Amino acid sequence: MTPDLGPLGLIAGGGQMPHRVIAAARASGREVFVVVVEGWADPADFAAVPHIVVRVGAGGHAMEQFRAHGVRQIVMCGRASRPSFTAILPDAGMARMLLRVGRAAWQGDDGLLKAVVRILEEDGYEVVPSQAIVRDILPEAGQLGALAPDERAREDIGRGIAVVRALGRVDVGQCAVVQQGLVLGVEAIEGTDALLARCAGLRREGPGGVLVKLVKPGQDRRVDLPTIGPVTIEGAAAAGLAGIAIEAGGTIVVDRPATVAAADAAGLFLVALSAAELQSTETTP
Amino acid sequence: MTPDLGPLGLIAGGGQMPHRVIAAARASGREVFVVVVEGWADPADFAAVPHIVVRVGAGGHAMEQFRAHGVRQIVMCGRASRPSFTAILPDAGMARMLLRVGRAAWQGDDGLLKAVVRILEEDGYEVVPSQAIVRDILPEAGQLGALAPDERAREDIGRGIAVVRALGRVDVGQCAVVQQGLVLGVEAIEGTDALLARCAGLRREGPGGVLVKLVKPGQDRRVDLPTIGPVTIEGAAAAGLAGIAIEAGGTIVVDRPATVAAADAAGLFLVALSAAELQSTETTP
Repeated sequence: MTPDLGPLGLIAGGGQMPHRVIAAARASGREVFVVVVEGWADPADFAAVPHIVVRVGAGGHAMEQFRAHGVRQIVMCGRASRPSFTAILPDAGMARMLLRVGRAAWQGDDGLLKAVVRILEEDGYEVVPSQAIVRDILPEAGQLGALAPDERAREDIGRGIAVVRALGRVDVGQCAVVQQGLVLGVEAIEGTDALLARCAGLRREGPGGVLVKLVKPGQDRRVDLPTIGPVTIEGAAAAGLAGIAIEAGGTIVVDRPATVAAADAAGLFLVALSAAELQSTETTP
Repeated sequence: MTPDLGPLGLIAGGGQMPHRVIAAARASGREVFVVVVEGWADPADFAAVPHIVVRVGAGGHAMEQFRAHGVRQIVMCGRASRPSFTAILPDAGMARMLLRVGRAAWQGDDGLLKAVVRILEEDGYEVVPSQAIVRDILPEAGQLGALAPDERAREDIGRGIAVVRALGRVDVGQCAVVQQGLVLGVEAIEGTDALLARCAGLRREGPGGVLVKLVKPGQDRRVDLPTIGPVTIEGAAAAGLAGIAIEAGGTIVVDRPATVAAADAAGLFLVALSAAELQSTETTP
């Protein structure tokens, strides 16, 4: 029991991660109060937990509810769709908050996320990374499954690192697909699943390529870390890829046993790259 | 008549550009010998011109034919699909050429193109840019149609320039779509039409975005310049965009009167950015 921290606040998007956070917090004896974001996650999945459903713009209401429930620490995780203009129409509380952070905070593709983190902190909340609640979701460097990348795949990984880093420096996507030295696709806001689906139709005959998914340089590591899971393995296999390279200590593997088992079953390698590997590969000509 | 230059050799991909080159060369009294690349262009469209059809790998055969026809200058233009492993299986002549340029020439997404240019030059051919044959396809800086970008669109153009430049530096795509500061998509090998089709489903409500299409830094300006035409306007309009920004002197407008008319009819702006505008916008924070 950690009653001094109060219940954990959770702003929940789609996918498995929010449920992993809830399970881990409860396993440690801590209560959770969830703000389910409308359109990102299905409220029915949170029936067993105290929760409210809010649209993206209703940040004022969410904050009142966090306060009323004694929340002082907040985790934000799960898949987010970029909000539409209507969904984001601010309520009164949100409008005040937005005025406070100003328009500058909205620049870049992570603008909304960064603005929300800043608002929460200015209001005295501590924004806690999901990896502080759920253990072992950030793999150490090394080979995670039964297979290892071959020489061709290692070259594709090197090219992928250079491309993802270049994209990350202008605050765009987190991943790219490379086959035989050719960049089949790069991610913007469509998400990794859509990128993989597209690359299935763009791949060439011959040896399969790789998905490289890394943290953006300068990214706030408390929120929106790149994530893979069994669904990613499925997509990569359907796209005919040879494997996946992620960032050790930076890319979340949502359900590691299931993800590794799926990769092994599909004949894909899954490798977590160390900072040194990322550095050396990126600077190789 | 310019008999001293011999007939113009043309390696033709898809789209309008090869036909514009043929028309312009013939209008100046010059004969053209065309190598139609199988799978990229429809041979039936070249029925009225001396031509052969070769698959990508049959470079040896193409070179023999150029030599037999007295070709000394060659234009390469038109839309290229990335070849499959089978299509690229080299014939004997091509295999010798590939051995000569070595594997290094195949790195990067423009590897094949660069290798071909190098082979042609080493064999004594002059690689001539299509803009040297067809006049007025590279617009000067300024507004091309009836409409001008507004303040919001200018900001999106600025973000697009930064993103396309970053991609270009790692030798990936030539364009990006930006709406309300958000990068909806970036191009790898899928091509601009596919990028626009995808962005139609990713756009947010509210004011439309922009397509930014620029030359890659360090790109060989004799081949593969970014190109737009009436089909690009159609795709941009279907994606709900407000307009298109291209690089003055660098982005080819295939059929300028038809392209500008289509943009005006669809309510899209079309603007060609000067080197100074590209520079200043890119460095603005």
